Order: sequence, then structure tokens, then C-alpha cells
Amino acid sequence: MEKDQITLDEFGLIDRFFVQSFDFKNRWPFQGVGDDCAFLDVGDRRIAVSADMMSQSTHFLDEADPYTVGRKALAVNLSDLAAAGATPKAFFLSISLPKIDQQWLSEFSRGLNEESLRYNCPLCGGDTTKAPLVRGQSKYTIAITVMGELPLGQGLNRRGALPGDDIWVTGTPGDAYAALGDIWGQIKVHPDDRLYFQSRMNLPIPRIKFGEAIRDIAHASADISDGLCGDLNHILQSSKVTAKVYWDWLPKSEAMRRLTKEEQQRCILSGGDDYELIFTAPKMYRERIQKLNDIFGCQVTRIGFIVEGTGSVQIIDSNGSEISALPSFNHFG
Amino acid sequence: MEKDQITLDEFGLIDRFFVQSFDFKNRWPFQGVGDDCAFLDVGDRRIAVSADMMSQSTHFLDEADPYTVGRKALAVNLSDLAAAGATPKAFFLSISLPKIDQQWLSEFSRGLNEESLRYNCPLCGGDTTKAPLVRGQSKYTIAITVMGELPLGQGLNRRGALPGDDIWVTGTPGDAYAALGDIWGQIKVHPDDRLYFQSRMNLPIPRIKFGEAIRDIAHASADISDGLCGDLNHILQSSKVTAKVYWDWLPKSEAMRRLTKEEQQRCILSGGDDYELIFTAPKMYRERIQKLNDIFGCQVTRIGFIVEGTGSVQIIDSNGSEISALPSFNHFG
Repeated sequence: MEKDQITLDEFGLIDRFFVQSFDFKNRWPFQGVGDDCAFLDVGDRRIAVSADMMSQSTHFLDEADPYTVGRKALAVNLSDLAAAGATPKAFFLSISLPKIDQQWLSEFSRGLNEESLRYNCPLCGGDTTKAPLVRGQSKYTIAITVMGELPLGQGLNRRGALPGDDIWVTGTPGDAYAALGDIWGQIKVHPDDRLYFQSRMNLPIPRIKFGEAIRDIAHASADISDGLCGDLNHILQSSKVTAKVYWDWLPKSEAMRRLTKEEQQRCILSGGDDYELIFTAPKMYRERIQKLNDIFGCQVTRIGFIVEGTGSVQIIDSNGSEISALPSFNHFG
Repeated sequence: MEKDQITLDEFGLIDRFFVQSFDFKNRWPFQGVGDDCAFLDVGDRRIAVSADMMSQSTHFLDEADPYTVGRKALAVNLSDLAAAGATPKAFFLSISLPKIDQQWLSEFSRGLNEESLRYNCPLCGGDTTKAPLVRGQSKYTIAITVMGELPLGQGLNRRGALPGDDIWVTGTPGDAYAALGDIWGQIKVHPDDRLYFQSRMNLPIPRIKFGEAIRDIAHASADISDGLCGDLNHILQSSKVTAKVYWDWLPKSEAMRRLTKEEQQRCILSGGDDYELIFTAPKMYRERIQKLNDIFGCQVTRIGFIVEGTGSVQIIDSNGSEISALPSFNHFG
């Protein structure tokens, strides 16, 4: 096998080409390549920064409504701040456009501005450029860098999960993936549920207030944009622990319950594009975490435990047997 | 004329769709949409942030050497920090790839890492995604957000030029555009000069040390990525003044002097893709600014004056007549 034929996933790519081990002078104290956010200590504050890129055809459908593209573009970045427990403060937008389509831009910016205002995160700069032409055609690419604030020394990331921790998840994972599966014809969705699943795919809710509330009590956290198992496994690898998650404990939306069990597993365990939080916390905080449900109107469910050892998550079925999850979402898989 | 047929340039686009007038709570004190950098006051520090996007075919040639693409991608962002007088501290890279080309990635990251180390600006995060397919093909898009530091209350931008100020420029503008003109067959470059012009286009030098040195004494500053007249006019508009620049005072590289006068004017006045600084400063600092030439080995030349009134720059020829500059570089022109 030739070297340039090796298949690399996104994490492999970053590790191989973009992780630096240089000795920079007077750098801002820094941690976080591979986490949802990087933390930079700037004077008397810690800032959390996340950069994400979305491409037409890859991350949103060619015919997607520009209003929802605008809302989602910012929401998925805000979700990274939520996972870190950071408070949104500013974002920067770079966008490459196939053409000046005023209708598209007007709807896109309306969605973006609504989300910006809703989460109190102003647009502070950016760049607009022409998209590269390929055989006379081109598509939208949207890059957002979002910045949030944390008290010095605080902030959640993938490290820090400890044996004995509870594992929690917000919302009902898998719903966004069900919408995709429906569009791709790989999942049979009940017609009454289609709109619900699509709204979950198109209009994810970044769990900002929730993230801020667990900042002091959670040990490790991530959003599940790469799927529940995928992102939990990132936590397990970073924290050098393993986990048991119980299928029966996993929260399932009403619409999800109308799918077959196999479809449910595919969506909930291996689906991607959900912007819920998965986090671990000591048992002593169970009551406090349950109460967040009422405070923020955001469902939160205990789904398993962190245990000693290293390895991927074990999903335990009703009968005690292990369910093997399909691989998580991977652009270059 | 239909509304959606109006031609908008980049500034028009940003003004129309992306400038927000919302009332955000507890925001970081902020200024700068439309400047090279935004300034954000975070606790006891001011940070300068710039976001830029480069696309294959639009910003670099399809067959461009990935090493130079990597170096230039970071350099043009660092140049925005230089214009603000900020010290580089961190950058974030989002890149969409047509495929996993290890050779390309290895050379690209080598160039990027070299520039990162040279300017003491570590890579702190980012995203890799798959580029959108158009008819089975796709291209590279590179988005970089760079962050620098300033003392609170300091930092240069386009506002602040005052009547009586000298206008200065670093290096020899127009060289990068001569390389482009040569490639496009629009300019006749002497074969001996080709390599020089190309290196000026491919490997711009961000004037970081220079920007830091004039931070306390300049009134207004920009880099001339949109061309000398284009960016000087941005300063004039923002500062509500006008300017006289003398053709004979403008610095011209040896290679530039071998072009016709019309070619020189096209490159120096209207060309883009130069990453030199243009700035204005009171007369009292003439000697101090001249000395920076020797300190940083970076040519700096006085090219004219700021005068009262509002309007575009007047370029005065040897015989006292006015030269009319062609419009500056514009993606959507």
C-alpha cells in the first residue's frame, strides 16, 4: 500500500500535518487542539475559540433554505462554546460566494443575525470572497470563528472524566440523523414526523446556558456533532477511561420511537450532526443536574457510567448483551 | 435596472448584509468592521482579530506550489495585524480539501508552519472538511483567523489621518501585481525580472516589527492588499480627509523601473496583492520613521500629504498634472 493512499480521518489529518511542537516565545497560555474549543489565557481572562467550516453539498444540501443555513452556521459554532461552558462574545465570518445572489444573502444574513442576537454574540469582522470556479460552477463555503469568555482556569474539554462519573446527555440525540437518513432514503420516517426531524437537523439549539451551568461541576464535556458514540469515545480516549452506556436509558424522541430498533440505534449511536452536549460528572451532582431540566427547559438524561480501563464505549442492550455501534460520521471515511 | 442586478463590491456586501446595529449585552468593547482588524477589549488586554479566506483559482493559481500557498495564507493575515500594530499571538485554520493529497498537505503545512514560527504565531485550532463537489471536481478553500495583542486603548486603523500628516509606504508597491500582469500576458516583464516579481507575489513579508514600531506615532494605517490608491482611499473615507501623492516620490523597485510608465502606474497605483503598509503620521516624526529603514531593513518612503476636504487621492505627475488611477482590485467588479 502506497503512503499517499492511507485513509486519514480528520483527527489523523490534524495530528499529522497541523499539530506544532515549536517553542513559541511569550505565547498566550494555551490548550486544546482536537477539543471543541481552544482555551487561550489573555491577561486576566480565558477565551475559548472554535473555528468551523461548512460547505454546500457536504454540510448543507444544495437546495437548503439560506435562512436555516445562516442560523445553523452560527449555531454549530456556538455549540462548541456550549461544550466548553463558555459565554459567547464575538464571531467572525468568512464566506465564499458563487455569485452575488441578493435573495440568498439577505435570507442567510437574516438567519445569522437572528442567531447572533439570540445568543448575544455579535459579528465583529470577516471576509467575503468569490468561490473557486470548477467547470463554470461554484458553491458556497462558510467559515466561522467564534469566541467566548471563561473565568481564568475554568472551562470544559474532553479530558478529566473519572471512573464512577455519571454520563449525561442533553435533548434527544439521533433526530438530526433521522432527517438525513430520510432524505437519503435509508430510513423510513413516518410522514407526520418528517417536519420534526428536519427542524432538528436544520435548527439545532446550542446549549449555551446549560454549558455555563455545568462548567463548575462536570469533569469532561463535548457536543455530539460526530455522533454520541463518536464523541463519547473522544472523551474516553482523552481521559484514558472507558464507559458503559445503557440502551434503555438513552432518551428517544417520540418520533424516534416510531422507527425500528435498528434505525434508532443507527441514528442515536452512530448518527452525527446533533448539537447536544454529552458530559460526565460525579454522582454527588445528580440532583443539581436533574434540576437544570426545569431551569432551562432542556431535557437532560443520565445514560451510563465511566469505568476504569481504556477503550471504546460499551453499549448495553436490555438483555445485558453488547450492541456494536457503526462507525461515526467521517468526511473522509 | 432590477435590484438583484446591482453590482456590489466586498465593502458594499458587508455594509448591506453583515453590519449589525443590535444592542448586545455585556459585549466586549469593540471597533472595526471594515478595518484590517477588529479590536476587542478583553479584560485588561486589547486583542486584534482578522479573518481572511483564500480560494484556489481566485486567490492562488490552480498549479501554485503548496509550500508558497501555505506561507502566503498566513502572511496575508499577519499583514492585517501589522497594519494594526498588533503582536501576533495565535491563529486558527479551516481548510476544505478536494481530496487527501499527502504531498500537497505536507508542503502546505511546511510553508504554514515556517511562517507561524517566523512570526511567533502558533496554530491553536481549526477544522478540516471536504470541499464541495461541482461536476465531480472541487478545489481548496483556506480560511484563517489570526489574533494579536495590543496594549489597551492602542492600535492603528483607517480612522485618524489628519490634514498636514505625511503619507508613508513600506517596500516597493506594485511588484506583486506585475507578476500577475506577466502571467495574464497584460504586462511585458523582462525575463531577468520574472523571478523577483514572482517572489514578491508568492512570498509577501508581513511588516510586523514595523507596525509595532509605528503604533504610537502613526495616525492611520492599512495594508495595501487592495492596491495603494484603493487602500489609501479607504483611509481618506474613514478619516474624512483627502490626500496628494507625488508620482515621482513613489518608491519603485529596479525591476519596476524597467516597465513602461503606464505599466508602472497600473501596477503601483491600482495593483493589489501587495502586503506593504501605508500610513500617515505627523511631520515631527519624519526622522524617527526614516530610521526604521535601518533598524528593520525595511524601506520606508514618504509619498505625499494629507490635506483638508473629503475625496479620493490626487496623484500628481512630474509636470504637476493629475494622473487618474484605474479602479482597484475587486473580486466582484
